[in-house]
Amino acid sequence: MSSKMKFCLNIPTRLIFGAGELNKLSTLPLPGKKALIVISSGTSMKRYGYLDRLQAQLAKAGIDSVTFDKILPNPIVAHVNEGAERCVAEQCDFVIGMGGGSSIDSAKAIAIVAANGGTFWDYVHCGTGGCKPVSRALPIVAIPTTAGTGTEVDLWGVVTNETTQEKVGFGSPHIYPALAIVDPELMLTVPPLLTAYQGFDAFFHAAEGYIGKAHTPISDLYALEATRLLYKYLPVAVNDGKNLWGRIKVAWASTLAGMVESTSSCIGQHALEHAMSAYYPELPHGAGLIALSHTYFKTFKNDSMKRYMKMTEKMTQAKSARPSDFLDALERMKRQCGVDDIKLSQWGIQPSDFERFADNAIATGQAMLDLDP
Amino acid sequence: MSSKMKFCLNIPTRLIFGAGELNKLSTLPLPGKKALIVISSGTSMKRYGYLDRLQAQLAKAGIDSVTFDKILPNPIVAHVNEGAERCVAEQCDFVIGMGGGSSIDSAKAIAIVAANGGTFWDYVHCGTGGCKPVSRALPIVAIPTTAGTGTEVDLWGVVTNETTQEKVGFGSPHIYPALAIVDPELMLTVPPLLTAYQGFDAFFHAAEGYIGKAHTPISDLYALEATRLLYKYLPVAVNDGKNLWGRIKVAWASTLAGMVESTSSCIGQHALEHAMSAYYPELPHGAGLIALSHTYFKTFKNDSMKRYMKMTEKMTQAKSARPSDFLDALERMKRQCGVDDIKLSQWGIQPSDFERFADNAIATGQAMLDLDP
Repeated sequence: MSSKMKFCLNIPTRLIFGAGELNKLSTLPLPGKKALIVISSGTSMKRYGYLDRLQAQLAKAGIDSVTFDKILPNPIVAHVNEGAERCVAEQCDFVIGMGGGSSIDSAKAIAIVAANGGTFWDYVHCGTGGCKPVSRALPIVAIPTTAGTGTEVDLWGVVTNETTQEKVGFGSPHIYPALAIVDPELMLTVPPLLTAYQGFDAFFHAAEGYIGKAHTPISDLYALEATRLLYKYLPVAVNDGKNLWGRIKVAWASTLAGMVESTSSCIGQHALEHAMSAYYPELPHGAGLIALSHTYFKTFKNDSMKRYMKMTEKMTQAKSARPSDFLDALERMKRQCGVDDIKLSQWGIQPSDFERFADNAIATGQAMLDLDP
Repeated sequence: MSSKMKFCLNIPTRLIFGAGELNKLSTLPLPGKKALIVISSGTSMKRYGYLDRLQAQLAKAGIDSVTFDKILPNPIVAHVNEGAERCVAEQCDFVIGMGGGSSIDSAKAIAIVAANGGTFWDYVHCGTGGCKPVSRALPIVAIPTTAGTGTEVDLWGVVTNETTQEKVGFGSPHIYPALAIVDPELMLTVPPLLTAYQGFDAFFHAAEGYIGKAHTPISDLYALEATRLLYKYLPVAVNDGKNLWGRIKVAWASTLAGMVESTSSCIGQHALEHAMSAYYPELPHGAGLIALSHTYFKTFKNDSMKRYMKMTEKMTQAKSARPSDFLDALERMKRQCGVDDIKLSQWGIQPSDFERFADNAIATGQAMLDLDP
């Protein structure tokens, strides 16, 4: 137990949290003079006016910007390399990721390649990656418009190599965002099902970080608060998307869960889901996790009994007598969010895929598997 | 309520926490090539070998150092200015504060003066201070050997102007330590009474930050955990100083309470105590706080009822029905730590002093008084 009282805490990101806080951007210290804005290939950043508002804030602060709008929901290496080329060609000195985790993670990857040269795969340290050291990155600003990944306060990103079918995490202290603006007003337009998928992603960052071997006293504090808030407020945000208070609580929980990723770690469930999404890029990350979760958490329930029960007690605010109470609470939360009936077959996944999923998870995510309870 | 969900979190310090972690110093990235080591005028840093160990670690990392060993328990401006002169003359490019809050706060003040020129009082923004902006500071490494101030993870320092009798707080984002090593083994030698005084200082950082108007969702998380841990483990550390587990828990609580100071704020009780210590420098800060605490917390018990009860429930792990339960828990904790019978008259303080204490607190600590519930 004493060994768990040795840990490091270092999240240098300046987090600005609150409804409407995007309107403050022009008054905040920004880490450069010309920004590459990285957004998805979808229409929502433009349709809802978020991109216009960001550009107006930058202009007000006297910051030039160019926009790169090609990122896919499961972002791919080709777009990272293309974005980095654009960044260098346009002489941008910082990168802004606005949108879901895909856009912010791509911004992080672009910040690495633009600062170090070469191509993205050179800097990946698992699977078939080139394992080059990441000695620097352009400064990053993260503006999430979904509540799920927590990437705005962590040192991780996830990108898929579409050629080798590897969905890998990459990490470096140089890709902590310099500035993160978490404005829950930007999340009011996320549809119910995506709200649920993303919220469960955050929930599992916290729950995995809490039961996994890398837990620390500070990650425990963040994880228990994140799971408590999500259990209570994710159903509110899913079923009543315009409820700002619910969105605020879920956004804060998601950021807390990101801080869990920076002070503990995701474990095997995430490694397995990455393998699934690598072969089935249409599978939403959160949906894959939800589909895995009952079996996954059942597998380890007797290896971390006290933690299962403590987490359940924080979530349900009631005494827990056995670790399987967590499984019951999880199923209840899924039902309340309308995601208790997810079938992987919806995305074409077959039992015959399972072996290659496992092989892929071992090849690209061994470090996470090693942290299972 | 919604306004409390707008906040900023930005503690850039790299915190290394754990028993024995001082032995890692030479392996950590250090922020310069030559250090001014700032320690107290007492003998403990030398007697217990802490200074030798620090110097050996620096030598192992190829870092030069010179030692400035004049800091008093209530540190004074003259020593800050002298230390800054020494720092500049010796061409030190970073400052290490090792010891109690007095040494670390002095290191912070020296880091400001050495980087900006002039004298310390130029940069103080309250009372008779010169109000010059602090545009930079030398990098700071903090190595606390007591558990109380939390200064290793905050942007504050406290120094007394011995001429004008002002004990003032000074703050700047530039004085967050770059590196903090919190090694509870270094705290095993603190005598019981000092352990209690220092631990209660940490307790009040958390409790004041929790009930005060500046509280935020993140400071609440830190504050409730800090008060819970101190209620449970401070009596252990006081009554059995060699109990490493107790020291670890109290050290962690003190660092968490420092994070409260960086995300919320101390309030009127601290302003009043600073006024008392300014006139009676022999009065230990923690003893002054303990003496004030019953009256202080009684004064506001009906202004923040829910928070008093929630904090009490976390501390005692039992239901609280009324805010005065907090006062009972506080008295119990004092008794268990042997500090339930502190009289200010022990330090020569008389009722006739109270008016000038109040005047001084208003003159130098109005910003804290404004945050009372």
